Amino acid sequence: MEVTRTNFKDSLSTVYSAIEEADFLAIDGEFSGISDGPNVSALTNGLDTPEERYMKLKKHSMDFLLFQFGLCTFTYDQAESKYVIKTFNFYIFPKPFNRTSPDTKFICQSSSIDFLASQGFDFNKVFRHGIPYLNQEEEVQLREQYEERRSQSNGSGNPSYISPNSNKGPGSIPEEHREYIGRVVTKVESLFTTSEKTVDLEPCTGFQRKLIYQTLNSKFPKGLHVETLETEKKERYIQISKVDDEERKRRERQKQEREQEELNDAVGFSRVIHAISKSGKLVVGHNMLLDVMHTIHQFYCVLPEDLNDFKEVTQCVFPRLLDTKLMATTQPFKELINITSLAELQKQLKESPFKSPKVVTAEGFPSYDTAQEQLHEAGYDAYITGLCFISMANYLGTFLTPPRAHIPSQSKLIQPFVNKLFLMRIIDIPYLNISGPDLQPKRDHVLYVTFPKEWKTSDLYQLFSAFGNIQVSWIDDTSAFVCLSQTDQVQIAINTSRYAESYRIQTYAEYVQGRRQVRESQGHSTQSWDEDGWVKPHYTSPSTVGAGPTGYSYGHNRPSLGKRCVSPIQEEQPTDGEAQRHADGWSGYTHSHTHSDTGSKKIRTDGKDTHTHTVTHTPTRAARRSGPTGFVYGRMQE
Amino acid sequence: MEVTRTNFKDSLSTVYSAIEEADFLAIDGEFSGISDGPNVSALTNGLDTPEERYMKLKKHSMDFLLFQFGLCTFTYDQAESKYVIKTFNFYIFPKPFNRTSPDTKFICQSSSIDFLASQGFDFNKVFRHGIPYLNQEEEVQLREQYEERRSQSNGSGNPSYISPNSNKGPGSIPEEHREYIGRVVTKVESLFTTSEKTVDLEPCTGFQRKLIYQTLNSKFPKGLHVETLETEKKERYIQISKVDDEERKRRERQKQEREQEELNDAVGFSRVIHAISKSGKLVVGHNMLLDVMHTIHQFYCVLPEDLNDFKEVTQCVFPRLLDTKLMATTQPFKELINITSLAELQKQLKESPFKSPKVVTAEGFPSYDTAQEQLHEAGYDAYITGLCFISMANYLGTFLTPPRAHIPSQSKLIQPFVNKLFLMRIIDIPYLNISGPDLQPKRDHVLYVTFPKEWKTSDLYQLFSAFGNIQVSWIDDTSAFVCLSQTDQVQIAINTSRYAESYRIQTYAEYVQGRRQVRESQGHSTQSWDEDGWVKPHYTSPSTVGAGPTGYSYGHNRPSLGKRCVSPIQEEQPTDGEAQRHADGWSGYTHSHTHSDTGSKKIRTDGKDTHTHTVTHTPTRAARRSGPTGFVYGRMQE
Repeated sequence: MEVTRTNFKDSLSTVYSAIEEADFLAIDGEFSGISDGPNVSALTNGLDTPEERYMKLKKHSMDFLLFQFGLCTFTYDQAESKYVIKTFNFYIFPKPFNRTSPDTKFICQSSSIDFLASQGFDFNKVFRHGIPYLNQEEEVQLREQYEERRSQSNGSGNPSYISPNSNKGPGSIPEEHREYIGRVVTKVESLFTTSEKTVDLEPCTGFQRKLIYQTLNSKFPKGLHVETLETEKKERYIQISKVDDEERKRRERQKQEREQEELNDAVGFSRVIHAISKSGKLVVGHNMLLDVMHTIHQFYCVLPEDLNDFKEVTQCVFPRLLDTKLMATTQPFKELINITSLAELQKQLKESPFKSPKVVTAEGFPSYDTAQEQLHEAGYDAYITGLCFISMANYLGTFLTPPRAHIPSQSKLIQPFVNKLFLMRIIDIPYLNISGPDLQPKRDHVLYVTFPKEWKTSDLYQLFSAFGNIQVSWIDDTSAFVCLSQTDQVQIAINTSRYAESYRIQTYAEYVQGRRQVRESQGHSTQSWDEDGWVKPHYTSPSTVGAGPTGYSYGHNRPSLGKRCVSPIQEEQPTDGEAQRHADGWSGYTHSHTHSDTGSKKIRTDGKDTHTHTVTHTPTRAARRSGPTGFVYGRMQE
Repeated sequence: MEVTRTNFKDSLSTVYSAIEEADFLAIDGEFSGISDGPNVSALTNGLDTPEERYMKLKKHSMDFLLFQFGLCTFTYDQAESKYVIKTFNFYIFPKPFNRTSPDTKFICQSSSIDFLASQGFDFNKVFRHGIPYLNQEEEVQLREQYEERRSQSNGSGNPSYISPNSNKGPGSIPEEHREYIGRVVTKVESLFTTSEKTVDLEPCTGFQRKLIYQTLNSKFPKGLHVETLETEKKERYIQISKVDDEERKRRERQKQEREQEELNDAVGFSRVIHAISKSGKLVVGHNMLLDVMHTIHQFYCVLPEDLNDFKEVTQCVFPRLLDTKLMATTQPFKELINITSLAELQKQLKESPFKSPKVVTAEGFPSYDTAQEQLHEAGYDAYITGLCFISMANYLGTFLTPPRAHIPSQSKLIQPFVNKLFLMRIIDIPYLNISGPDLQPKRDHVLYVTFPKEWKTSDLYQLFSAFGNIQVSWIDDTSAFVCLSQTDQVQIAINTSRYAESYRIQTYAEYVQGRRQVRESQGHSTQSWDEDGWVKPHYTSPSTVGAGPTGYSYGHNRPSLGKRCVSPIQEEQPTDGEAQRHADGWSGYTHSHTHSDTGSKKIRTDGKDTHTHTVTHTPTRAARRSGPTGFVYGRMQE
């Protein structure tokens, strides 16, 4: 179902009930660009820490516009053993609400726009009929504007144009306006002597309107209703009506209701995100970190500086997330699935050992034909993502004794994959852990190499030719990380480099240490990311957001682990040898074995026989080879 | 005529001949936004100097995209006493040309997009079918890329991947690639023993392709044609063909022609601007400063830092410009025309004393119906602008003795209006003088006032209430210019302010002096405008541009006053009392009478009777009242 500004208000109850009845939701966003940085490979270094990656995405991707939001709701019909789906394709555009509302600027990236154009994306629908939105702060501001205007026209409150330094009170009308205001007062006085009920003044300036409000409120505290209206030519004028007390109150109530409706219209699409959030349902996406970041940034709040703050906010907005790209690259799926772009994943999940789920479109909703691909329409992508999730979830059921054909989204089998968002092209940290500390791989086989800017990848290959297979991650023109295949080669490399003049080698530990010192000497840690003219974040800590002034109540949905972990080490230490293998799949390689993971538990269902489903992996040769020439092709969001 | 990527190449000769035969051209651009600054009124201060205004527009407006370019050519048919017009509506989009071409990012401003959307603007046409373009520098780069690739596949030139530090020459193939390259060589050798003419290798990496080129060029310097092709899946592979010498040359010639065509396609719409430029024809626009800046910035070169450099570049690209908004606000039109927005101007020019010109659409071109307005489509706006110009030009003919009904675009009557671009909302400098020094009004009635950030315009009115009518131009939250109506009030105001604590008053001269000192102490003058992450300008001085490496020859179109004036004072001092009146119309007020203006000459036509047409004006009360509340409504580009 296509939802634009035209049918948004009428569709909202349909959207709400679809979310309410669903077992899980799938989402997808289309953006006006991916990255405004120099090039994607420089922005996604293979040895980024999660903090670095988050800061890069925040800095280089958030000025794009999320202009299409796909939502597909999946409801399981137990009797018929099938899913019933409802797909929504929302077109989003920050149409300025009125003359004082924010005039949003956003960046478009030609390659992204061109790609979407080639897929038949309808830009006219976005720009002509997109649904507006406000984030929480803008909503609060708009509400305050209404309240201020109301109190001003009531005569209570200080008109804002009187400066604190001026003590002359509302009586002081600038010389050149006195005659005009005098004429208005005469008009109003004569209104009381006639049978006319209202008088319309000529259009006038905002300053004059303020003077009129101020004068009439002090001269005629009761018995008048004063209102600013617009002519057809959008000129503003004042209408003054004689009213009794009851009539005045009725009019003010009406006006308040009208304003509330205007406010709701302005909040617009953000109301859908609020509903998703409040539902607490599992939200599935494919390679969804950017979708999550954009959704929060555009409809909830400016993204916080600190990664841990971001994790908290994310848990408020999306209490349960699942990333199908992360799932597909994790055991037991990893060995069965070669390519994890959404289109390829969906193809592979149609084949054995996987099964296509039985899915029907709810009555009244247009159905998608998966044979006739409509990829990169957000609603379709969300739908496909949901299908992939179901196929993979149900495959986990085959490990149970007895096997189960349907694994619901609340199942414990799903839990190891929850709240872990895929990290593109990081060699040894596959995911961002939203509900806990991130993996901390050792990286003691990694070298930090600096060299003249003429060097190419082939020079690095030559330099390290004695060490066999290496992996190069470029940082900038004159530096790169080089991963050796054996940790014990590190010392040899460093020794042989001691007298080199054109290049320099450090261990990863030395590099991290050096960078920390630089930061500390500059007196700030993450601030260096925010030097160049970005909007200052007005981030309210989630503890206040939960019970914030806007009446949203995300708070009660927050899972119990909402508290920020200061130490990334404790909490749920693995208790048996089995768990040491780290069932989520990234224990084998180099990261330290200190992180906790609930996914490492044995799986027991129905108290019956237990089947231990252990998933370990070592980053494959393929992964380690992914960047041998230093070129990274392909779209960032697959 | 609508021109998109689809029909661009086929339309180009039509465009060229329309420009060639025309008497004058009218242009108009539509942009994805106007200003990325906080608000328009802060960006267009009423007392900006031309330098300041230029820097503000450069800084805050050039990241938008000019995505529709309207061109209307006007050719006078002497026999029928009518103009024949051809209108072109070009859709422009920087579709990335190939994987290494620039991936342009541009900003969209919601209010501008929303405005265009409400006018029925077709965004799909822009983004799906827009014509690409390159500026001069990008064209040169692309040409060099082609040449480098050619010399590489010829075996001449150093492959770029061999670093200067490596002395091993082209023979050094990294260990892990040797077996692969060996297999390729064997394949090629066996090609010579069979009747097969070509062999296609498997798709491989860019690095491997380089190794193959290098190896084959050294092993088989003749008798082979090696070429990189793409599979349907866009994978690149190498095709090797046995050829005799002649065949090889023929193939290379073919390839070169193909590349030249690709280059032309990439230069795209910029070729139209080159043609306009080369024609040297009068180019008419309405409030055209932003159009001119965008056109140069997008299709010619990154805008220079310095205003004088900008004027030089502008004279290269557009040797003769005329701004109808400037014309309409100048005597003798000023007194006859109230509102100078394009739509209103056109309406007023239909009425007496003006006459609508006789205009017909050339055969084969769709005609516009002026009764059915299509404003804000660039082609239509260009057409209307041309009509306005003709009506005003012909009106000047009524001053001649005998009167003339048709005034051609080359007429000396037009000259006073040429190369002066309207400056929005500057109180005392109505235009930017492209072909000479700018006006330098005295501003000795202007005060620079600083105050607490709570102050509003009304506080300033109150402060200066003793001085009668004042005019306020806000600079930022805590400062503004205040224009007094009498210069002799300045000293009184400063004296009374001496002991004030909350605010401070300086003369305009003191303010300018203070700012100069701050700049000098910082060691740079204009650099302060360029602090925040903008693209560094790669501006080539116009002297080299004219005869630049790309073969454009704007140089010969440059008028004789091309030399930069170091002193803004001399050159063509008025020689008679008549000229002192400064026929262009802005001498009466406060600016110093030191600027030169060719428009101040007596008008003599055909050596007959001379009619002196003198135009003076004093900024009207209306102009001085334009900002009394400090609010500036309306679109920046009217």
